[in-house]
Formats: sequence, structure tokens, C-alpha cells
Amino acid sequence: MTMQPPSDTPTLLYGLGLGPGDPDYMTVKARRLLEEADLLVHFCKAGRRGNARTIADRVVGSDPDREMALTYPVTTEVPVTDPRYGCQITQFYEECAEQLSAILDAGKRVTVLCEADPFFYGSFMHLWRRLSPLYPTEVVPAVTGMSAAWTHANAPITWGDDVLTVLPGTLPADDLARRLKATDAAVIMKLGRHLPKVRAALKEAGLEERAIYVERASMPEQVIVPLAERSDATAPYFSMIIVPGIGRRL
Amino acid sequence: MTMQPPSDTPTLLYGLGLGPGDPDYMTVKARRLLEEADLLVHFCKAGRRGNARTIADRVVGSDPDREMALTYPVTTEVPVTDPRYGCQITQFYEECAEQLSAILDAGKRVTVLCEADPFFYGSFMHLWRRLSPLYPTEVVPAVTGMSAAWTHANAPITWGDDVLTVLPGTLPADDLARRLKATDAAVIMKLGRHLPKVRAALKEAGLEERAIYVERASMPEQVIVPLAERSDATAPYFSMIIVPGIGRRL
Ligand SMILES: C[S@@+](CC[C@H](N)C(=O)[O-])C[C@H]1O[C@@H](n2cnc3c(N)ncnc32)[C@H](O)[C@@H]1O
Ligand SMILES: C[S@@+](CC[C@H](N)C(=O)[O-])C[C@H]1O[C@@H](n2cnc3c(N)ncnc32)[C@H](O)[C@@H]1O
Repeated sequence: MTMQPPSDTPTLLYGLGLGPGDPDYMTVKARRLLEEADLLVHFCKAGRRGNARTIADRVVGSDPDREMALTYPVTTEVPVTDPRYGCQITQFYEECAEQLSAILDAGKRVTVLCEADPFFYGSFMHLWRRLSPLYPTEVVPAVTGMSAAWTHANAPITWGDDVLTVLPGTLPADDLARRLKATDAAVIMKLGRHLPKVRAALKEAGLEERAIYVERASMPEQVIVPLAERSDATAPYFSMIIVPGIGRRL
Repeated sequence: MTMQPPSDTPTLLYGLGLGPGDPDYMTVKARRLLEEADLLVHFCKAGRRGNARTIADRVVGSDPDREMALTYPVTTEVPVTDPRYGCQITQFYEECAEQLSAILDAGKRVTVLCEADPFFYGSFMHLWRRLSPLYPTEVVPAVTGMSAAWTHANAPITWGDDVLTVLPGTLPADDLARRLKATDAAVIMKLGRHLPKVRAALKEAGLEERAIYVERASMPEQVIVPLAERSDATAPYFSMIIVPGIGRRL
């Protein structure tokens, strides 16, 4: 069992969970590490501001001297099922790891900004896998996007013995429907262009009425509506559907 | 869709998520509300310090004048399947809600301390259900126990299209095994006396080797070991088993 390094090893690499959006939902530790960071690193799409960097905006202003953007070569242009996607993106993470290695080798601390909780579907995991065996690393957990979603939707997600299933919207329709039928509560992440398929799966599982669509939970542009009131238009990056459980009320 | 009250309504009731244990993992908002609270309320077992109250200890000292403990009439003495459990505990929540109503009616703010995230299997939900329709309420999300567990176990929980299933250890053995077989990653909460049953289900699902036992994640007494190294002795309240996913590594 490899655990986090003992606290007397000075950490060089941080995977800093920034929480779901509201800067007041950052942890005390994240806020402190953000303010004290030597070099802030974040992922972004070409020509766009990084999502994690945007969450940090209200705490730390832009400062080219202490920032570095890692720009994805492809995102939604090539489907993840296309072998070219895996190949290009793997090469990208390799290059990012090399770039950061050079900085870490010089003894400089690197703080990678992460959307919400780093170890829950986070891109940082691909850097962590390559760099944490080599440099003292600390990962700072955070409030997840789904916690912000169920809190702001005013919808406790699990009661009593409820089972919660977290599903990526990228799964095939029949897989989604089968898993939705078998659960008490659900969270469906990564909606994008998959919203019509996800809606159909929810309908097949008899859960459409209970489904809530949540966009940019805890951010200023937050949108929360029953799924039935949401069109099938492509969903923005920060969006998910939640289906609260109806388990034991005491 | 009932959402949280607009920010110009002064909040009277807070469901304050304190995070998994480490006070540095509290949100900036939780820390502030904890320090400013008029009355801190927490649940506890007879003769024991409340779990959520203990998490708050390192931030706010005991102060009988601004604290109130809500003491459970039964906990593990009567099994949850026994009709007497439901009856006694429902009556207990009713009485708690009445007690707090009297305070809220007098215009006094009430801050209920919650273990980790309030809307994720939280006891506060039973008060929230009764009181939030009557008093302006705000729930503050938090880092969950499971986020602390996978972070401190150095085990990213979901990769790529991994499905995550969260299971209460209280479920029947066959139910657990069936659901474990069908998932990519799992978290099993509420272990207590159910650990041998949970282990058997993991074994049946072929997941025992990947299972990690985590006790008091992010607390000073934290224990993290492969499940194979953990005995079948009753697990303490703050414990869970995680099974990290093995999805798409890029
Ligand atoms: C690559 S995953 C990262 C998840 C993140 N690490 C977390 O802990 O929530 C991106 C997905 O997270 C979800 N998400 C994260 N934050 C969100 C928010 N504030 N509002 C809505 N969805 C969010 C969306 O479903 C999005 O597709
Ligand atoms: C009633 S549920 C409350 C869950 C909590 N609201 C959360 O967000 O994690 C209690 C269960 O949470 C889990 N738990 C919460 N915090 C934990 C921690 N720091 N370490 C291990 N388990 C924890 C345990 O499985 C425990 O049985």
C-alpha cells in the first residue's frame, strides 16, 4: 500500500482540488496552497481559458510569471473511441509530464489546479500516474461537482440504504438504461452531446420524472431545472443529471 | 424545483458540512460559519461525544452556552430492520425538530454540524425534511468521507468511463455481490459488523485483491490497509472499503 509521503518530505508536486466553482467551497488548505503557490499549472482547450483556472480566478489573478497552461491537442473533435484520440492524448500527457519534470528537477514546486476533486475522473490523474513515483506529491481532495449539484438542487441524494451509481454519459444507451434500472439514486456526468441518449435511458428506466438537470453548480451562471424542462441541445462542460434516492425517511 | 433561498433572506438554519475529519479539509465557508455560529447542534450516542462535534473540536472549543447535543435513543442495540427502530428513531427526529423549531421561532440561528457532506447519507436530512419548508435554510456541501479515503489511499477512484457504485454495507450479501460484479469501481460505507459479509461479497465478485480498507480517513488515527490484511473484527463508525477503478489510462 503506497500512501502519501510522510509530512517531513517537502512536497514538490500538488494536485490541488479547487472544488465545484464557488470559491467559498474551496477547502482551507486549497485556498492557502493557491495563494502560496510558486507555479500554477492548468489544462485548457486551445484558445479557451482553462476550467480549473477559471475556478481559481476569484482568488488569484492572472500572473504570466507564475502560470503555465497545458493545452489539449484534441478534445471533442476526435471521438474518444477513435484510436487516434488515445494516441494523441497519451503523447500529450507524456509531453506534459516531461515539461513538469524539468521544473520539478530544478527543485521548483508545481501546483496543478484541478476541477473539484482530483481523484474523481480528473485529468490530473494522468500526470499523477507518471510523476508521483518520482517526486514527493500531495493530492488535496475537494468538494465534488455532484455534491454541489445535489446541495444546490435542494435534493439529498441518498437516504438509508440507497445505492448510488455514478455514470459517465458517454456509456452506450443500453448500458445506461440497465444500470439506471438497478439503482436507487444516480448521477450522470459528462453529458455534452449525450443528453438525448441519457434522457432516453432515464425514460426507459422510469426515472425521467425524478431527474434534475444541473449546470455549473455553485457558479454564478448556475442553472437547475427538472430534466423535463431541459431541451436536447448540447450540454456545456460543467453539467450533470442527478436522480435523488427515495430511500428510508425516518 | 425548490432551490436554496435567495441570498437576501437571512438564513436561520444551517446544515453545515464539516468534511471528513482534517480541519484543513473544511471549506472556507464552513470554517467561517463555525466560528460565527450562535448555536452549534450535533447528534450523538448516549455517553459519547458526537462524531461531527469531534471534527469541529480543533476549530471551536466546547462552550455549553452555545451548544446542544441531540442524543439518539437507540443506535446499534436495535437492528434497523426491527420495526421498533424506525418507530423510536422517527419519534426522536420529530422531537428534535420541535426543539429546534422553538429556538428558530425565537429568531435564533441554529447550525447543525454534519459529518462530511450533509446530503450524502446524512442524519441532518431528517431534520432538513421537517424544518427547511418552515425556516430559511442553507446547506453547505463538504468533502465526503470517500474523497478523503481515495485520496489518502493514493488511489484515484474512477478513470475514463468507469462506473462508480456506492453501497451501504448493510445490504444483503447476494445484493452486494451482484452489484459489485456489475461495477468498475466501488465504495462500501457503513461497515460495522457487516465486514465479513462485505468481504465475502467482494470475494465472490473477484474484487477482494483490489479492495482497500480505510478507517478514519484524514483523521489523526487514520488506518489504510489492503482489505486482505484487515481482520473481520467489527469496524469502527468511520470506516469504509474502496475498490478503485481500472479504466482508461491515457
Ligand atoms: C472530468 S470530470 C471531473 C469531475 C471532478 N473531478 C469532480 O470532482 O466533480 C468533469 C465532469 O464533472 C462534472 N462537474 C464538475 N463540476 C461541476 C459543476 N460545478 N457543475 C456541474 N457539473 C460539474 C460534469 O459532469 C463534467 O462533465
Ligand atoms: C451516515 S454516513 C455519512 C457520510 C457522510 N455524510 C459523507 O459525506 O461521507 C457514515 C459513513 O460515512 C463513512 N465515512 C465518513 N467519513 C469517513 C472518514 N473520514 N473515514 C472513513 N469513513 C468515513 C463511513 O463509511 C460511515 O459509516
